[in-house]
Amino acid sequence: MAKSLPVSPLAPAGFPDLPVIGGVRFASAAAGVRYEGRTDVMLALMDPGTSVAGVFTRSATRSAPVLDCQDKLGGATDAGAAILVNSGNSNAFTGHHGQTSVEEVTKAVANVTGVPVERVFTASTGVIGEPLRHDRIVAKLGDLNGTLEPGGIERAARAIMTTDTFAKGAAARIEVDGKPVSIAGIAKGSGMIAPDMATMLVYIFTDAAYDQAPLQSLLAELSDRTFNCITVDSDTSTSDSLMLCATGAAEVDATDDPGFADALHGVMLDLAHQVVRDGEGATKFVEVRITGAASDADARIHGLSIANSPLVKTAIAGEDPNWGRIVMAIGKSGAEADRDRLSIRFGDILVAERGWVSPDYREADAATYMKGQNLVISVDLGLGEGTATIWTCDLTHGYIQINADYRS
Amino acid sequence: MAKSLPVSPLAPAGFPDLPVIGGVRFASAAAGVRYEGRTDVMLALMDPGTSVAGVFTRSATRSAPVLDCQDKLGGATDAGAAILVNSGNSNAFTGHHGQTSVEEVTKAVANVTGVPVERVFTASTGVIGEPLRHDRIVAKLGDLNGTLEPGGIERAARAIMTTDTFAKGAAARIEVDGKPVSIAGIAKGSGMIAPDMATMLVYIFTDAAYDQAPLQSLLAELSDRTFNCITVDSDTSTSDSLMLCATGAAEVDATDDPGFADALHGVMLDLAHQVVRDGEGATKFVEVRITGAASDADARIHGLSIANSPLVKTAIAGEDPNWGRIVMAIGKSGAEADRDRLSIRFGDILVAERGWVSPDYREADAATYMKGQNLVISVDLGLGEGTATIWTCDLTHGYIQINADYRS
Repeated sequence: MAKSLPVSPLAPAGFPDLPVIGGVRFASAAAGVRYEGRTDVMLALMDPGTSVAGVFTRSATRSAPVLDCQDKLGGATDAGAAILVNSGNSNAFTGHHGQTSVEEVTKAVANVTGVPVERVFTASTGVIGEPLRHDRIVAKLGDLNGTLEPGGIERAARAIMTTDTFAKGAAARIEVDGKPVSIAGIAKGSGMIAPDMATMLVYIFTDAAYDQAPLQSLLAELSDRTFNCITVDSDTSTSDSLMLCATGAAEVDATDDPGFADALHGVMLDLAHQVVRDGEGATKFVEVRITGAASDADARIHGLSIANSPLVKTAIAGEDPNWGRIVMAIGKSGAEADRDRLSIRFGDILVAERGWVSPDYREADAATYMKGQNLVISVDLGLGEGTATIWTCDLTHGYIQINADYRS
Repeated sequence: MAKSLPVSPLAPAGFPDLPVIGGVRFASAAAGVRYEGRTDVMLALMDPGTSVAGVFTRSATRSAPVLDCQDKLGGATDAGAAILVNSGNSNAFTGHHGQTSVEEVTKAVANVTGVPVERVFTASTGVIGEPLRHDRIVAKLGDLNGTLEPGGIERAARAIMTTDTFAKGAAARIEVDGKPVSIAGIAKGSGMIAPDMATMLVYIFTDAAYDQAPLQSLLAELSDRTFNCITVDSDTSTSDSLMLCATGAAEVDATDDPGFADALHGVMLDLAHQVVRDGEGATKFVEVRITGAASDADARIHGLSIANSPLVKTAIAGEDPNWGRIVMAIGKSGAEADRDRLSIRFGDILVAERGWVSPDYREADAATYMKGQNLVISVDLGLGEGTATIWTCDLTHGYIQINADYRS
């Protein structure tokens, strides 16, 4: 199915040129978990001394691999680390068999790579509720370990795709204390917030050194400003995983370096936007900017209410500057709002203010603006200093086709 | 636009035969608020002694008529009461002009009917953000007052339609203390929870007498079990209004009578189901039954998470027994769940239990079941005694067509 989907009109021109990250090597293979004629498993192997941080789905029905990764976070950094990801089967809602599969795969990865099993992380993405053929993955581990190479990250990005219509990568090159440091990341998914075959998985690597505990804090904080600010359809996968590995091969410690944090934020935001740009059926990339809310938390609630509203999303799909639906979404959100203090803008066009349409508003201008592919909807609540920015896409016939017209 | 939509495939065979309710008369007219060639305003006039209760949208951006009605609830019952509703314009987000329109209309209704302005209730449904041409409504009030008749309720139901594809009515005939009592209600809307042109409005009338304060309590309680348990697309109108008038013409007091409450519940549930059955683009009517939750509140959260999930709703549209999406929706809801205690049924078919697909499950059976027009999805959490039932419809190309393909 993934192969039959046309590439999203919002896709970047091509996969970016990612830097080689010292201390990490990649391999990918076709294990035949479910798909035929394509790779479906990737292995990343990190040198000893690598710090590993992770953020995972909060779903109460999260998958066996997610539970296993969460148990292992914060382990010793004197050993190496390995990440093994398969596509085609999510190993979610597979009962006790799910845990068995995770144990078999992590044990086998440990055996073949020499990394202790406590430092072997896995993820699975694909159909829910079918037993994972872990034997097929285990059978490929020798090949994977024998073909590890520093430049294999793009092939790794392709091996973990499911309904993605393009492979997603982003990078940054900076200096920390005068030494060059690189960050490279890959992602898959059509939502954070995604269909049962489009879990979001993100793996980011840097050759900087970074202490384990602050690396975890940094990842969680930046995740709240990037991946937790995107939404395709408000649905959340049982398998969403974001991991960050700092190998230290660049021989410079970036712990608490603000330039590093900025660069990492940029890589994460780029990947998050790419996930939205591959949203199922998406034809518009939409930034929802909330200002003037009573608090940042309220701003986020308003932003998500707008970004998840089926009526707002269908209006955008129809290139309809239907600001009444923005008013509706703010009203229903549950966060504080005062009808008579609201102002709403499409791009630079002031649409509504003081509880009514702006006297200067001309619908023809807004209709022209809505024809663009990248849209900004700004709402000022006029109440306080709270702000939030949310990124989303429109809701189109393409979404219905992908999720209703085909049987999964 | 409303007239161009085909009647929902889930519509009842026809408008029901509603009983005449003593103490209330109806009139409708074509005021030309926005639509041409159809009625767009209705007046209901209640005799002195009528108790009036109301439940309204909780939206923070609710319309001027809603704010006015809320102010007036609980007023004296020794005067009569009037309800004036127009379609075509919602008088929402119209700034101070909105309040002026409400004042002009209610004052004029009071003048022509003799009902004190404190007992004149209004509602408006239609486009948001355009000034209401209240002069056109006022100009018709003499005609309306002159054509009031006890049997006019069906025409009233038609006058308040917007994107509705069928007029909605329901009734009950019971005995209270050996005397016959009737209840008749009308509704419009494609959601509670609805597009900017499909606000939910409900008006119910009975000839029983009922004390004002307990009538308000009863309406609120039954509303939580009926209209607040339906969802079409999770969006909430700025104008949703539900009013109940007890005229006392039957000369029997039904206050706290359990049989009356049951009958009223039946009328409200019937109307609520009709709103879902007219959900935009709906082809399936779906009952989501949650049992075994940690609390009733948790059960409601799980039920709404399933009923509002775009992935669940598109799977239903595609007649796909995709139980993995049910697991996903439970997991993301935020309410308590234990993957290994869940059980899921489609109709009588046990799909999943103890964290995995049931050993007896055959997908072919479930696929056959999903072809039906009325579906029941049952989830037992296995945690406690909490229950909830939610009603919804599927998410189809029809929804996208109505909300994206046409400019409003």
